[in-house]
Amino acid sequence: MRCQAILGLVLESRLNFIRSKNSLRILSMRHVYHHSSPFSLDSGESLPEITIAYDTFGSPNADRSNIIWVCHALTASSDVADWWPHTVESGKFLDPEKYFIVCANILGSCYGSTGPLSINPATGEPYYGDFPSLTMSDIVRAHSLLADHLCIDRIHALIGSSVGGFQALEWICGQPDRFDRLVLIATDAYASPWSIAINETQRMALRSDDSFGRRAPEAGRAGLATARAIGLLTYRGGEGYNLTQQDLTPPDSPENRRPCTYQRYQGEKLCRRFNAYSYMNILNAFDTHDVGRHRGGLKAALGRIHIPTIVIGISTDMIFPPADMRRLAEMIPNASYVEIVSPFGHDGFLTEHQQLNHLLIPFLS
Amino acid sequence: MRCQAILGLVLESRLNFIRSKNSLRILSMRHVYHHSSPFSLDSGESLPEITIAYDTFGSPNADRSNIIWVCHALTASSDVADWWPHTVESGKFLDPEKYFIVCANILGSCYGSTGPLSINPATGEPYYGDFPSLTMSDIVRAHSLLADHLCIDRIHALIGSSVGGFQALEWICGQPDRFDRLVLIATDAYASPWSIAINETQRMALRSDDSFGRRAPEAGRAGLATARAIGLLTYRGGEGYNLTQQDLTPPDSPENRRPCTYQRYQGEKLCRRFNAYSYMNILNAFDTHDVGRHRGGLKAALGRIHIPTIVIGISTDMIFPPADMRRLAEMIPNASYVEIVSPFGHDGFLTEHQQLNHLLIPFLS
Repeated sequence: MRCQAILGLVLESRLNFIRSKNSLRILSMRHVYHHSSPFSLDSGESLPEITIAYDTFGSPNADRSNIIWVCHALTASSDVADWWPHTVESGKFLDPEKYFIVCANILGSCYGSTGPLSINPATGEPYYGDFPSLTMSDIVRAHSLLADHLCIDRIHALIGSSVGGFQALEWICGQPDRFDRLVLIATDAYASPWSIAINETQRMALRSDDSFGRRAPEAGRAGLATARAIGLLTYRGGEGYNLTQQDLTPPDSPENRRPCTYQRYQGEKLCRRFNAYSYMNILNAFDTHDVGRHRGGLKAALGRIHIPTIVIGISTDMIFPPADMRRLAEMIPNASYVEIVSPFGHDGFLTEHQQLNHLLIPFLS
Repeated sequence: MRCQAILGLVLESRLNFIRSKNSLRILSMRHVYHHSSPFSLDSGESLPEITIAYDTFGSPNADRSNIIWVCHALTASSDVADWWPHTVESGKFLDPEKYFIVCANILGSCYGSTGPLSINPATGEPYYGDFPSLTMSDIVRAHSLLADHLCIDRIHALIGSSVGGFQALEWICGQPDRFDRLVLIATDAYASPWSIAINETQRMALRSDDSFGRRAPEAGRAGLATARAIGLLTYRGGEGYNLTQQDLTPPDSPENRRPCTYQRYQGEKLCRRFNAYSYMNILNAFDTHDVGRHRGGLKAALGRIHIPTIVIGISTDMIFPPADMRRLAEMIPNASYVEIVSPFGHDGFLTEHQQLNHLLIPFLS
C-alpha cells in the first residue's frame, strides 16, 4: 500500500535526539506533506495545492494503537513540545516513548502550512490579503487529508485546547468513528458572541493600522501587536496580571510601568514570529466554528460523540468560563468534566501542565 | 461673601423643567466656571486658566446639608441624568427634590471642561497632543476648586463609580473632613496592573492609528474606535455579550454578525461624541491613581476614612472584581460591602439602577 510506504518514510527519516533529565529520547521530527491537487474550501473557492507542515514525536507501535493527534491553538506551530512545555516528555501525558504524537500546523498559519504568505501558484506572488477565507471545517479537512496520507485510520486520542479544541470537536463530529478518546481543554463547540466580540475587536485593531493591506509580510504590524495585546488580556485575566505585573520598584516613567512594557513586548514578540494576514485569516476561521451547523444543532451533534471524553475547564478562564465548559461536557454522553485551578485564566492550559499530566496520564492509558 | 453670591447666582439662573411620569420637576442646570488664574499640575506644568463645566440638579436647602457630589467615569459628562438612567429622579437615590446634586466634567475631557481640544491661550490653537499630562489628584483639585467657588464646605455624600470612584477616593483622602458619607461603586483605591494593562492596550490601539498626532479634532478616530471596543469587552464581559449579542437569524455575511456590528457601532458612536486626545489623556490620568502614594500606603490612607461608607461590587465585574471590592471595603474602617448581582459586568453600575436605588436611598438619608 502506498500510504504504508509513506508512513514507513516517516519512521525512517532522521530522528532528533535531545537530552532530557534522565535519558536520551526521541523528541520530534518535522515533516511536510505536499498535496498537489486542488483543495476545495467551504467558501466555494479552492487552493490549487496545499502544504501541511507537521511534527511527530515517538513512534507508532505495531498495530498503530498508540496514535495521539494534538490540534494547536491560534498562533502556535506543529511543534507541541515547544508551545506546551512539560507535556511531550517521558512520563508525561504526551510521552513519546509510549505514544506516536502528531500535530499539524493549521491552514492559514505561517509555520510551514499553506497560508497568506505562501506563494499563490496562479500569480507567483504571496497571497497576502487575497488568501481565501477558511472555515474551521476547511482546517479540519486538511488534518484528515494528512491522516489519510499517513494511513492513520484510527486515532487513540484526539486532544485540543482553545482553538485546538474547536478543531477536535469539528473533526470528531465529522468523523466520529476515527477516534477512541477525546480531550477538550478550555474550548467550546461554537464561537460564542463573546469570543466573536473579542475577535472583532482584534480585527478592528488590525484594520486601523494603515499599513494592513500592503503586499508585504510586515504589513499591519502595529495593528497585529495591538490585536495580540487584546488577546493577551483575555488569555491571562485580572488575577494573572495582578500576580505577575506589579511594579516592584517605581518605574522611571509612566510608559515603563510593568503592565505597559509587558503588553507592548508581547505584541512586538508576536510580530517577530507571525504576520497580520495569517492572524486575520485564522480569527475569521475561528468565528465560523459551530459543530451544530448542518448537524441539527449543538445538542444533536455533540450527542453523537460516544467515546470516553474528558472536558477540562480552568477556574479563571474568561473566554471559556467553567460554567460554559460544564455545559459542553453535559452535552457529550460519555464526558466527564474536571476543573483545574489556576490564577492564569485561559493561559492555564499552558501553565498548569502538572494538573493536566495528573488528569491525562490515566485518561489516555 | 463673594462665594455666597455665586451660589446665589446658581440658584437664580434659568431652571430646566422636564416632564417625568407624574410630575413636572427640576431636572438640571448646566453651568460653567472659569478659573482665570494658572492651575498648577502635579507634573510641574500648569494650565494658564481652566474652565469647569458642571451640572446641578435640585436646590440646596437652607443649611446646605443636602449636597451630593457625583464624580463621573471615563467618557461621561457632568449630566448625570443622561448617563446614569433612573437615578436622578424623584424617589430615586439622586432625588432632585431632596438633594442638591453636583457633577463636574473632569479636566482633560471634552464636555465643557478644559481639555486637549480647548484653545491654548499661549498659541490661540487647540492643545491637541500638547495638552499636559494630568494625575487623578489634578482632576480632583479642580473639583475642590469648584466646590470652594460654590461655597460648598461640607458635602453630605460623595459618590463615585468606576473612575468616578477613583476621584472620590482621592478627594476624600486629601480632604477627609469635607464629606459625611461615601459611596464607592465598582472602583478601587489604586490602578491595578490589570487595569493598567487594559489601558495600555487601548493606548496601543490609539497609537497604531497613523492619524493620531495630527492637529485635528478627528485625528486618531479608527484607533479611538478600537480602544473603545477594547474597553467595552472589559465593561460588559462574557455573560453580558452572550445574553445580548446572539444572532437571532443567520447574518448575511460574517462581518454582519451581531457581536461584530456591535463592537464597530459602539466604537463609531464614541468617535461622534469624544476625541482621541481626551481619551488618551484620561487613560493616562487613570493610571496615576493610587491614594496610598505620599500617604504611607493604601492601608494607612484608607484607614483614615471614618465616615459611613458603602462599597458596592458587581458580581460579574472583571475590572474591579468582587474580591478586590471586598478588600477595599475591609481597609475602610466604617465601610460595609454589598454586592449587586448582574450579568452585565462593570456596566452593571449603569444597568442595575434598581438594586442601586434599593441600597442607596436608605444609605443617603
